[in-house]
Amino acid sequence: MILLLTDFGLAGPYVGQMHLVLRRLAPEVPVLDLQHDLPAFRPDLASPLLAAHLDFAQPGDVVVAVVDPGVGTERRPLALRLDGIWLVGPDNGLFEAALRRARAVESYAIVWRPERLSASFHGRDLFAPVAARLARGDRSDLVPAEPTRFPDRPDDLPSIVHVDAYGNAWTGLRAARLPIGARLRAAGRILERARTFGEVPPGTAFWYENSSGFAEIAVNGGSAAATLGLRLGDPVERVDGDC
Amino acid sequence: MILLLTDFGLAGPYVGQMHLVLRRLAPEVPVLDLQHDLPAFRPDLASPLLAAHLDFAQPGDVVVAVVDPGVGTERRPLALRLDGIWLVGPDNGLFEAALRRARAVESYAIVWRPERLSASFHGRDLFAPVAARLARGDRSDLVPAEPTRFPDRPDDLPSIVHVDAYGNAWTGLRAARLPIGARLRAAGRILERARTFGEVPPGTAFWYENSSGFAEIAVNGGSAAATLGLRLGDPVERVDGDC
Amino acid sequence: MILLLTDFGLAGPYVGQMHLVLRRLAPEVPVLDLQHDLPAFRPDLASPLLAAHLDFAQPGDVVVAVVDPGVGTERRPLALRLDGIWLVGPDNGLFEAALRRARAVESYAIVWRPERLSASFHGRDLFAPVAARLARGDRSDLVPAEPTRFPDRPDDLPSIVHVDAYGNAWTGLRAARLPIGARLRAAGRILERARTFGEVPPGTAFWYENSSGFAEIAVNGGSAAATLGLRLGDPVERVDGDC
Repeated sequence: MILLLTDFGLAGPYVGQMHLVLRRLAPEVPVLDLQHDLPAFRPDLASPLLAAHLDFAQPGDVVVAVVDPGVGTERRPLALRLDGIWLVGPDNGLFEAALRRARAVESYAIVWRPERLSASFHGRDLFAPVAARLARGDRSDLVPAEPTRFPDRPDDLPSIVHVDAYGNAWTGLRAARLPIGARLRAAGRILERARTFGEVPPGTAFWYENSSGFAEIAVNGGSAAATLGLRLGDPVERVDGDC
Repeated sequence: MILLLTDFGLAGPYVGQMHLVLRRLAPEVPVLDLQHDLPAFRPDLASPLLAAHLDFAQPGDVVVAVVDPGVGTERRPLALRLDGIWLVGPDNGLFEAALRRARAVESYAIVWRPERLSASFHGRDLFAPVAARLARGDRSDLVPAEPTRFPDRPDDLPSIVHVDAYGNAWTGLRAARLPIGARLRAAGRILERARTFGEVPPGTAFWYENSSGFAEIAVNGGSAAATLGLRLGDPVERVDGDC
Repeated sequence: MILLLTDFGLAGPYVGQMHLVLRRLAPEVPVLDLQHDLPAFRPDLASPLLAAHLDFAQPGDVVVAVVDPGVGTERRPLALRLDGIWLVGPDNGLFEAALRRARAVESYAIVWRPERLSASFHGRDLFAPVAARLARGDRSDLVPAEPTRFPDRPDDLPSIVHVDAYGNAWTGLRAARLPIGARLRAAGRILERARTFGEVPPGTAFWYENSSGFAEIAVNGGSAAATLGLRLGDPVERVDGDC
């Protein structure tokens, strides 16, 4: 299966053209849209989301991940094989969180280049054809190469990495790694943990473990982003002791 | 075929993760997105829309319908078989309109529970796996049980149940059940019936039978929602006599 | 393969119902969404976009294209075969640009009518069933007929034809037909050409050849539509000499 993760949004022909390329080159391989509103132009914020999505991937799957502010510049195209799952995309830190959690890592540079490479849409012109061939077992586009690493980045990202349609603000912190009773500070507010929305009074801000395993900041019956003034990339702080 | 009807919206990974679960468990069954902007958190308003969508379903299809403000609480997960079509979702009135129109009804509680059940995403964790198994003929997740009924609800809902991207306001009233020449009152205005947009002068508000069979309030060349100040859940009144 | 190009947007059940009809009638034919935000109600602006999309189609494909402000009126439903690719949609100028670029043209009126034809959704009720049958080789819905032509329209449309989610403004001018060093005038501003975003300082407006071959007006790190006040249909002018 080929899984798509991008920051393209659903407007315009972008996602459709990627599907078209994949279908032409690997008609027998199912292609699924996992998320197309990854943090735009922010591979650092997209990295923990991508890593979490891999929980739903299986060995043999090919994940095409594109958050690529450097498209058209010299950044390298990359293919990684992490615990049997192929990842294809730009070498810009997008894969850092996934790389750290993988046990078995193979890494490659993509050396194939298409006859026609647009300046702005390598997802369609370069990554999709390579993904289609990998899904069919063809690695001829690759040569072994090391990915650029980002050692200063924390394992869990204390930032807002996604704001959903309801105004819930996903953090890059995995809930399972926070102590029971941990509180979070965001936008100058201290937030207590709850199990779900129904446990807190309407209008109250809190955090809970969302369905992707992240600590998510929410307001029962309201928009956390609007109520607290939270935006993509804003800092979040663990408050484990007294305050 | 498996048909998806939810209020998840298209942002985030929600719809994609449901597709992924369905594809893993029933790779041979096509899955189609019918609508993902059902009225958010309003099973009462979504109920007539769901019933209308069933006109396009066939015996053997499995409809996964999720508008579920009570997710994570004690509301029961339900499976209904209405005239040969399976419906899977929460027992919260979402299926009331469909139940009333069905001739042959079988009803079941879903007793299977997944190993990992998130607090907020039963569509992915519970309803999708059950739907995949039903699509393959496996009913082992079910035991016979009666759904909660909502006898006070009218057969045709005199409310705005959907506002589309152009600002057209769908009512929950089926046009075929309104008398020829029926007028509607909404937002304090009396609206005449037309066959389609071209029949009324630009800027004029009217109602017509939309492509799903509902009385829809529209403005030729404009947004009925903006012009009349109509919002989801607002009341609509039949005006059959003089006024 | 069946490719969908419409102005329906992704809200509501419209796209889903088209897929459902196609799947029922041609279950073995893949259906791909290429673009659903073509310029709403503007077949003149959608026409060059549609023609560009055909670069990605292949002989045997069926393209269903619906931008149809006259739905429910007397405009004819049309089927064209351009260089082996079927196009199905309304006879309102939407296909003019594609017709001009085609070498081999066959044209037909669609004479089949469904038992139930809604007033507002011929995409589902009429064009989708015909497309499904054409994809299976069945032309029995058609009789030879000439399409309405629009001879006054320029080959390259000097107008904004699409504004994407980032505020980039696509023109209807093909970049390959503009002289090297051509400048564009839009919203009273003269714009220089660049190869891509990274070549100009942040905040600077420019134009470049986008991934569909059009001259696209953009602002590095910003929204061209907001910065320049550009909207769908606004004029764009080639400035080849001094100014």
